[in-house]
Amino acid sequence: MKIGIYGYGNLGRGVEAALYNAEDMEVFGIFTRRSPDSVKSVYETKVYPANDVLKYKNDIDVMIICGGSATDLPTMTPDLAKDFCVVDSFDTHAKIGEHFLNVDATAKSGNKTAVISVGWDPGLFSIARIYAGAVLPNGKDNTFWGRGVSQGHSDAIRRIEGVADARQYTVPIEETVKKVRSGDMSDFTARQKHLRECYVVAKEGADKQRIEKEIKEMPNYFADYDTVVNFISAEELKKNHNALPHGGTVIRSGSTGKNNENSHTVEYSLKLDSNPEFTGSVLVAFARAIKRMNDKGDFGCKTAFDIPPAMLSPLSDEELRHSLL
Amino acid sequence: MKIGIYGYGNLGRGVEAALYNAEDMEVFGIFTRRSPDSVKSVYETKVYPANDVLKYKNDIDVMIICGGSATDLPTMTPDLAKDFCVVDSFDTHAKIGEHFLNVDATAKSGNKTAVISVGWDPGLFSIARIYAGAVLPNGKDNTFWGRGVSQGHSDAIRRIEGVADARQYTVPIEETVKKVRSGDMSDFTARQKHLRECYVVAKEGADKQRIEKEIKEMPNYFADYDTVVNFISAEELKKNHNALPHGGTVIRSGSTGKNNENSHTVEYSLKLDSNPEFTGSVLVAFARAIKRMNDKGDFGCKTAFDIPPAMLSPLSDEELRHSLL
Repeated sequence: MKIGIYGYGNLGRGVEAALYNAEDMEVFGIFTRRSPDSVKSVYETKVYPANDVLKYKNDIDVMIICGGSATDLPTMTPDLAKDFCVVDSFDTHAKIGEHFLNVDATAKSGNKTAVISVGWDPGLFSIARIYAGAVLPNGKDNTFWGRGVSQGHSDAIRRIEGVADARQYTVPIEETVKKVRSGDMSDFTARQKHLRECYVVAKEGADKQRIEKEIKEMPNYFADYDTVVNFISAEELKKNHNALPHGGTVIRSGSTGKNNENSHTVEYSLKLDSNPEFTGSVLVAFARAIKRMNDKGDFGCKTAFDIPPAMLSPLSDEELRHSLL
Repeated sequence: MKIGIYGYGNLGRGVEAALYNAEDMEVFGIFTRRSPDSVKSVYETKVYPANDVLKYKNDIDVMIICGGSATDLPTMTPDLAKDFCVVDSFDTHAKIGEHFLNVDATAKSGNKTAVISVGWDPGLFSIARIYAGAVLPNGKDNTFWGRGVSQGHSDAIRRIEGVADARQYTVPIEETVKKVRSGDMSDFTARQKHLRECYVVAKEGADKQRIEKEIKEMPNYFADYDTVVNFISAEELKKNHNALPHGGTVIRSGSTGKNNENSHTVEYSLKLDSNPEFTGSVLVAFARAIKRMNDKGDFGCKTAFDIPPAMLSPLSDEELRHSLL
């Protein structure tokens, strides 16, 4: 199957790496809103201007859209879904319902199939939650993220006056993870669940005390957490904080039995060296599923919940029963 | 939906507990090959003789078959699938392909839908393996079982002359789990992965040394493992080893990137107080899916790989997108 990559930032590069690793897939090309000459593919994939995309609508089986959730995907995905089967990683939780309906309408108008909000959260973590919840209806989910780089929080720090660069790590609080793992079903606060660890490069002459205060008091991003701010040099940031690791854990504790006397814990964890490459790999597996569903005449917008796991695997049903069941 | 329970051993009781916990399900009754009067349901569920089952074919939406994989399920599931939508937990790995084809043929003959081999392994662990494998094609799976009671190994010990009762715990070797978790992709032997811990009640006057030797040298079951044998009294067995806890971990380590320079670990773990009650809860969630697939006209035999996760959940698609994605 032939796959297009729409957008070539960190995620687009992660998708490209995953595609070259998939034996049943071929990379058609990269589409960019920048000047194609300015985009250098690591694999020397052909680069096309985004404006020309419709010229290739019959040459591409699935388009993987690698834009941002804040401003790109809300319009990009419904637009492209008219003419392409598409995959996106939309993660603005409060707007998923609306995004789903928009994409569903345009995909159906062109007999296309789309899947939105795949990656690891939303995505694989959502899948872990739905299975665990269906099996243990008497129970409670907890999700911990990290230790890993939150790009949203890093960007928020960079917008503060006097900050040259920054990296923010979300760190799960091990003591709370242990409690949840042992079946504690209390409600934990944001502060009890995660610590925020910041590495900040200040501009010359900037007031570090003010920067630290502004970070720690920033509503939504930092105010509800214990936050540690470390000022470091640009060289140190580049040397020690250049990667984008991430991960996390979804834990469901629940009980069964006539008097709920038996406790069970289901845990799904990821430890990722490269968040964009792993997320890209998830998008590629879902691209495979979307092509197959479209071939079967199953049109419209899907989520990870609507797709049988076998659709994601390159193995045949017989091989799957033999080797993975 | 109305659910029948076919067979009332440990698993049947686990299914019953899960059904009374599911708001959208009603227990039609228990079918037994024993004398119905001799079967006492914990919930006072009505008990019917297995021979009468066909009388109720129009009253039951899904039959959950709680028989053993060795001799019951290979005939029971294909037979019942002619007249009922069915769920089983068939776990004889080498025969799953054959069992699937048998059940598929009879289910299709009566426009019924069946799912075989659900539970946690095969079942939830298989699901963890298929998602992780689809996302990380360059990688390797490792499964560890326990710490938990293996009923097959306990039975094997009980068949030794001079043994009154026995309980065998399968124990994962923590050092190997740690290696796998940190990305070590070596091939580990059975001995490196699991320890077998046995609690044995000897009959009066039995030769304990001979029993211990016979256990440790038993092919397939114990010979390839380090095995610890503890002789205890019947009272101690009853007091300390009466429960059926189990669990385990599926770990996939894999790499991405042009030169496979980034490593990732995906881990799915279960810690279960009661193996039969948790397994029963999985069977009940799949019964929900099977009824829905049959309503849609999707007939024949399925495995966990063929069923979209949303089908297992009592929540609507909209609620799922809102609360779990």
